[in-house]
Amino acid sequence: MTHHIQSMLETYPKGLGDIDKTKLAECIEACLECSQTCTACADACLSEEKVSDLVKCIRTNLDCADICAATGNVLSRHTGYDANITRRILEACRDACRACADECETHASMHEHCRVCAEACRRCEQACADLITSLG
Amino acid sequence: MTHHIQSMLETYPKGLGDIDKTKLAECIEACLECSQTCTACADACLSEEKVSDLVKCIRTNLDCADICAATGNVLSRHTGYDANITRRILEACRDACRACADECETHASMHEHCRVCAEACRRCEQACADLITSLG
Amino acid sequence: MTHHIQSMLETYPKGLGDIDKTKLAECIEACLECSQTCTACADACLSEEKVSDLVKCIRTNLDCADICAATGNVLSRHTGYDANITRRILEACRDACRACADECETHASMHEHCRVCAEACRRCEQACADLITSLG
Amino acid sequence: MTHHIQSMLETYPKGLGDIDKTKLAECIEACLECSQTCTACADACLSEEKVSDLVKCIRTNLDCADICAATGNVLSRHTGYDANITRRILEACRDACRACADECETHASMHEHCRVCAEACRRCEQACADLITSLG
Repeated sequence: MTHHIQSMLETYPKGLGDIDKTKLAECIEACLECSQTCTACADACLSEEKVSDLVKCIRTNLDCADICAATGNVLSRHTGYDANITRRILEACRDACRACADECETHASMHEHCRVCAEACRRCEQACADLITSLG
Repeated sequence: MTHHIQSMLETYPKGLGDIDKTKLAECIEACLECSQTCTACADACLSEEKVSDLVKCIRTNLDCADICAATGNVLSRHTGYDANITRRILEACRDACRACADECETHASMHEHCRVCAEACRRCEQACADLITSLG
Repeated sequence: MTHHIQSMLETYPKGLGDIDKTKLAECIEACLECSQTCTACADACLSEEKVSDLVKCIRTNLDCADICAATGNVLSRHTGYDANITRRILEACRDACRACADECETHASMHEHCRVCAEACRRCEQACADLITSLG
Repeated sequence: MTHHIQSMLETYPKGLGDIDKTKLAECIEACLECSQTCTACADACLSEEKVSDLVKCIRTNLDCADICAATGNVLSRHTGYDANITRRILEACRDACRACADECETHASMHEHCRVCAEACRRCEQACADLITSLG
């Protein structure tokens, strides 16, 4: 996956401005991975016997999946770049990932899918935070 | 449309907390309308003869459409409510709508679809700002 | 909402081809309404005490919400129109709406949100079927 | 990315039925990759000097991106599995990928981003076709 993200950044016909290309590619990849993992974790939670203990986890997963997907799309566009929108959606994504990681971690010892999902959320939280910092 | 959004809020099996139900329903509706209008405006811009003058408008439309759609989804969920995520995505949505309205307004005298789209963006910008204020 | 969808169709700078404009606008509206209602119904199901009886309903709601949203976007674009893609996504949307309506109807006497959601799904199923027919 | 998709399939708390797990994981990955690549290709096309030659490509990219994203989400859910919805959305995705690959290939010698995107579309078209076959 990273290979294609990187290829698309390298074949972009104009300059990308001051943005750190490596951090950008990592953040796009982390957003896609986190969105998919959260979608799958919400569904795995639905298949657990004690689903009633996991309703907050499912909802947080769904919010995080939607916000990560939107963020991955915004980060994949460079034409007419607007630093404020990028920063705002990265802040929303970072906070959604943190909330979802916090929630999934409370179930990680019981449910392996929550453990894997918490990891994907922490990675994306960090990738968003790093990219925000690099925006200056 | 507002009728169904309102019905779903009224049939929700638990309390919705302190959130202003009317402002919430208006904001969900505004997000859906703005997302659709921006998607259609991006496509209408692609059909204009001087599409090269509209590339920033198209990109801003696409960002706004994605962020509005994600915001409408997050606002439609109440289980395990997280005020911080709601606020963050509303801020991103408000700013994306403002940027898109600003851009579309510069083309409104030339392109009727940009005029209609600027209206939908301003309405959604305001609905997001109102809901943020009501969150306290 | 319909007002804006109609306005965007009317301000489209080129011809829309043979497609029935009224049926198209109705179908876009039905897709958006159904997507939002399914998102809200999945969340309302999560708030029910007997959530374990509703896991299939939640999953079907989520599939239907995603497919309706994608269909609404495809239908909002006319530039470089591809009748085969339109037909394929309408078939997927019609079938997803039918499955979700069937499932929600089994819970409609118990849960008012499922009753409202089944209505939105049936309306969208019909709108997709009508638009497919009009494509010839 | 594939690693996380595979991990989520392996940690799923119930059986996945008769579906071929390897083909499923490959198809989810191909959908995410294709969706991101199409989003980026649409934006790269917007940055080309002769954008007016690329309007059909941009539109096809946007349709393909939306349909791939929805398909990746549907494939990531297994609870209350509905084979008909899966088949329908896979058919829509396969055809959208084929149309986008066909279009991007006509620009591949001029624009490197279209060449990379055509590859991602062909890979996803094949992954969808393979998964449809394995559904029986």
